[in-house]
Amino acid sequence: MTFIKDTFSISKPVRLGIVGGGQLGKMMAFEAKRMFMKVIILDPSKDCPAASLADKLIIGDFSDEHKIYDLSKEADIITFEIELANATALSNLEESGFLVHPSPKTLFVIQNKYRQKKFLRENMIEVPDFELVSSEEQLKYYCSTSGFPVLLKACEDSYDGRGNYLIRSENEISKAMTYFSGRQCMVEKFVKFKKEISIMVARNSSGTISYFPVAENIHEDHILKTSIIPARISKETETKAIDLAIMTMKSLKGSGIFGIEMFVDEDDNVLINEIAPRPHNSGHYSIEACSISQFEQHIRAVLDYPLVQPKLLSNAVMINILGPYNYTGPYEISGIDELFAIPGVKIHIYGKLETKPSRKLGHVTIVSNNMDPLLIKRNVEDLLKVRQPSF
Amino acid sequence: MTFIKDTFSISKPVRLGIVGGGQLGKMMAFEAKRMFMKVIILDPSKDCPAASLADKLIIGDFSDEHKIYDLSKEADIITFEIELANATALSNLEESGFLVHPSPKTLFVIQNKYRQKKFLRENMIEVPDFELVSSEEQLKYYCSTSGFPVLLKACEDSYDGRGNYLIRSENEISKAMTYFSGRQCMVEKFVKFKKEISIMVARNSSGTISYFPVAENIHEDHILKTSIIPARISKETETKAIDLAIMTMKSLKGSGIFGIEMFVDEDDNVLINEIAPRPHNSGHYSIEACSISQFEQHIRAVLDYPLVQPKLLSNAVMINILGPYNYTGPYEISGIDELFAIPGVKIHIYGKLETKPSRKLGHVTIVSNNMDPLLIKRNVEDLLKVRQPSF
Repeated sequence: MTFIKDTFSISKPVRLGIVGGGQLGKMMAFEAKRMFMKVIILDPSKDCPAASLADKLIIGDFSDEHKIYDLSKEADIITFEIELANATALSNLEESGFLVHPSPKTLFVIQNKYRQKKFLRENMIEVPDFELVSSEEQLKYYCSTSGFPVLLKACEDSYDGRGNYLIRSENEISKAMTYFSGRQCMVEKFVKFKKEISIMVARNSSGTISYFPVAENIHEDHILKTSIIPARISKETETKAIDLAIMTMKSLKGSGIFGIEMFVDEDDNVLINEIAPRPHNSGHYSIEACSISQFEQHIRAVLDYPLVQPKLLSNAVMINILGPYNYTGPYEISGIDELFAIPGVKIHIYGKLETKPSRKLGHVTIVSNNMDPLLIKRNVEDLLKVRQPSF
Repeated sequence: MTFIKDTFSISKPVRLGIVGGGQLGKMMAFEAKRMFMKVIILDPSKDCPAASLADKLIIGDFSDEHKIYDLSKEADIITFEIELANATALSNLEESGFLVHPSPKTLFVIQNKYRQKKFLRENMIEVPDFELVSSEEQLKYYCSTSGFPVLLKACEDSYDGRGNYLIRSENEISKAMTYFSGRQCMVEKFVKFKKEISIMVARNSSGTISYFPVAENIHEDHILKTSIIPARISKETETKAIDLAIMTMKSLKGSGIFGIEMFVDEDDNVLINEIAPRPHNSGHYSIEACSISQFEQHIRAVLDYPLVQPKLLSNAVMINILGPYNYTGPYEISGIDELFAIPGVKIHIYGKLETKPSRKLGHVTIVSNNMDPLLIKRNVEDLLKVRQPSF
């Protein structure tokens, strides 16, 4: 690494390479540029959300090893905002002494859902029961012993719940197997959860761990719609969740920020659902509501700066702005004028040129200590409309 | 204006033209780009702090009317981060129906300190006693009736206290007059103040006024060094200050955010010191500590969106990072590692390529409800050093 850690140089600023220029890359770039770091982004699209913030944009696929090497030539350190980053190319870079965080080894474990769950179970971290599925017969047998419902999951390349299939009875088994035909799959016992929660946890290379307040997450059609902070859970459950998140980070060892999604089941057990080795949608609230954002915490972690415990400055609700489930194409977002009349509101528009079914186009965070989060959610959803352009 | 107020269009985003690409322009650009507005900047330097955030940068002087017309061709609305913007060119644009906010008429009044004070006095707003000075004899006569000290001020083009000369006795009069030789000057009775405070006040074209919490400001060598929020003043003084700030905004009528600097004198009278028709250094704390920042409030005001009253989420201290008073040239900022170990700290590095004597190079905001602001100030100043590059 060519930068001196204690010093911000103006003539030789830190050059942060990011694989992926989506909204996570955009929000990371905001924080980096506030501190006068240079941002170099690898993304397939010249119009990606982070494009106009990048000091340099390399157009290419996340999996293209040559493009990842190109990125390394422009950067002092590489991180990623997407699990699809080519772990092998990143590993090669790491082995050659180049800084890549989180470690490609950790990325490799997390990239595959089966590998991730297996790793966690081997490390004594509570996860729902699961196994690899290679045939319909095997799945049938699993269901006959576990009972319904179960979740069939594609182990790789699945985002925003699109890789999950809920099987409620025997006659859905065959359809589910066909749905994921040709892809590696695992089956997971469906957790009857009371709540879905998550914690953003950061770890720097020196081993310091810090965590953000617990978020309560509401999904609709498997896509995160709303986060409520702090989560409406008991102190006891909160402690369990924090302990579990820290234990997970200790076993994972990567540097950076990780989104740890968890279930609280009907008996108040806390189990790991999934881990994201990057900033996470459920941590966006930290930009407005915390003493440090998940994006700055990530940058500090990958550069091995001190990590202090974030403080919640205000309760918050985060509401995703999703494209319509049945429309692909150009769009506009209406209701801005009335939205701005709500105290504590902040809007983020990612600037994706096209919407796709239920695509994440932006989000709204409201900071307030005296609001009903679900009422606020309904108000914002009633106001903001994603629609075809009117001109 | 080509944009529809209620709607954020992705294919035709709002194009915000900003005269000036310094740190104020940079921080305004961050907020605009979060909301997917386009940012077009006019600045003499291709390396200005906002340059790498601008969707388009027009290189030219703030006073160059042709460049201002160029800017108007690229933008839906023009605002400015610097009083040096050419008010005549902006007036011409406004008269032709183009949106310019704050109004060039307001800019014209504020640009000249004598005109500004005269306007305020005519509007029954309390200011220190002052008059225009055209000769040494006149100044002598003024001093003989008012007593010392007095402040001799250049009426125009003076930033960061560089246009002020404190005259403590008769034999400094001649030196002061020579110092400002050839420039229009005014003399002002020196206010023996207990505190310097300021309020950021925003007004939109619909006439809604909103104000930020009162900041207490500490200057060193006439340059703002630290702001403490909330100001350590009595409730009564706070009310007086807010009333005065609102009264000032009502008479000024411009749309946008204004920095209203005030004195609290020894008898707890509150008087206007100076008005900045733009975001102000003493309002930077709002980025981290308020439910909305002064920069977003400014954008909302100039686009005539609803303005809600900002809420203070946490006490805060803002400390400017200034270049050494005796050095011009390249620089680096050390002490970052230890700075990051302070809870609630956020650093802004503007990225100016060169420092000049006491130049504003960045600032640090600390949010915390349980700190001694002066101790924090000393700690940060002890840690952060601006120095010549070590390589």
